[in-house]
Amino acid sequence: MRSKGFDGMVCSIAGVMSAIGDRWGLLILRDLVLGLSRYEDFRQSTGVTNATLSDRLKHLEAGGLVGRRRYQTNPERFEYHLTPTGWQIAPLMQVLAQIGDRMGVSGADAPPLKFVNRETGAEIRAAFIDQETGKEITAGNLAIEPGPGADHLVRWRLSLEKRREEQLSESASAG
Amino acid sequence: MRSKGFDGMVCSIAGVMSAIGDRWGLLILRDLVLGLSRYEDFRQSTGVTNATLSDRLKHLEAGGLVGRRRYQTNPERFEYHLTPTGWQIAPLMQVLAQIGDRMGVSGADAPPLKFVNRETGAEIRAAFIDQETGKEITAGNLAIEPGPGADHLVRWRLSLEKRREEQLSESASAG
Repeated sequence: MRSKGFDGMVCSIAGVMSAIGDRWGLLILRDLVLGLSRYEDFRQSTGVTNATLSDRLKHLEAGGLVGRRRYQTNPERFEYHLTPTGWQIAPLMQVLAQIGDRMGVSGADAPPLKFVNRETGAEIRAAFIDQETGKEITAGNLAIEPGPGADHLVRWRLSLEKRREEQLSESASAG
Repeated sequence: MRSKGFDGMVCSIAGVMSAIGDRWGLLILRDLVLGLSRYEDFRQSTGVTNATLSDRLKHLEAGGLVGRRRYQTNPERFEYHLTPTGWQIAPLMQVLAQIGDRMGVSGADAPPLKFVNRETGAEIRAAFIDQETGKEITAGNLAIEPGPGADHLVRWRLSLEKRREEQLSESASAG
């Protein structure tokens, strides 16, 4: 069941999650990235019920992430594919897999998937690049600030930690 | 409502999503990364109901992503924080925000959040690094192969696209 409460929240993170729908939506997108395309493939891959699969495919199609084309008539059958917008979500799979491998939540002793450079076969990892120097920075050096599209709520969230620190130091000096 | 159907699937991506729970779980983790810590902060930030918030915080705590400490008695109140395991999920927020900004699903005309280098203030983006050369590669050059922990189902998923192509070329040469 997908929540409706995300509408109207100014947040790119919430926006992507709305487009994906839920974990089933994410698994369908994962499977499309892995090369699956047919309804029965998704069923076999995820073990999802028909009702859920059909609903999530419709949601992904309505959101412009997934397209479909008929490959058979009588009975009518469709193949699904990622649209250019849908492909923008693909890097998320590598990042989620990398995090899951580190957390040890894959259900296997070693990484189930290997992400490689198509040209050389060398392994790939996700990293953060400083746009000015082009150099990699660690996650610990990442800071978050209000962007040009920040609304009141975004600014409030980002101000909370600082204000608590100030209150703490004021009450310490008053005491 | 969280699905139960992910248990037993060998997949790091599904594993991370199970640990997060659902989109509310993800928004709570987002808020923790942004510096929020108190129950009422999460309520105000997300507009989530008490029942859902309390359930998702318990789920995140049970999964080892979130810890809590009492900061007040009478009435008892708790502050929440990311555990070291929880912080491993933090880079996901930057990647989701970057994807959402590109897809234009933030609900604002410009990025609501800005991710910067804490030391220099320069903007940051997520990228894929070839582990052998240390150089960046494009998402189009990313290929996925079975890893050392792949089970039968993972290998089947990754074989599908190739087998369809072979069938197509066989039927083309037979016809």
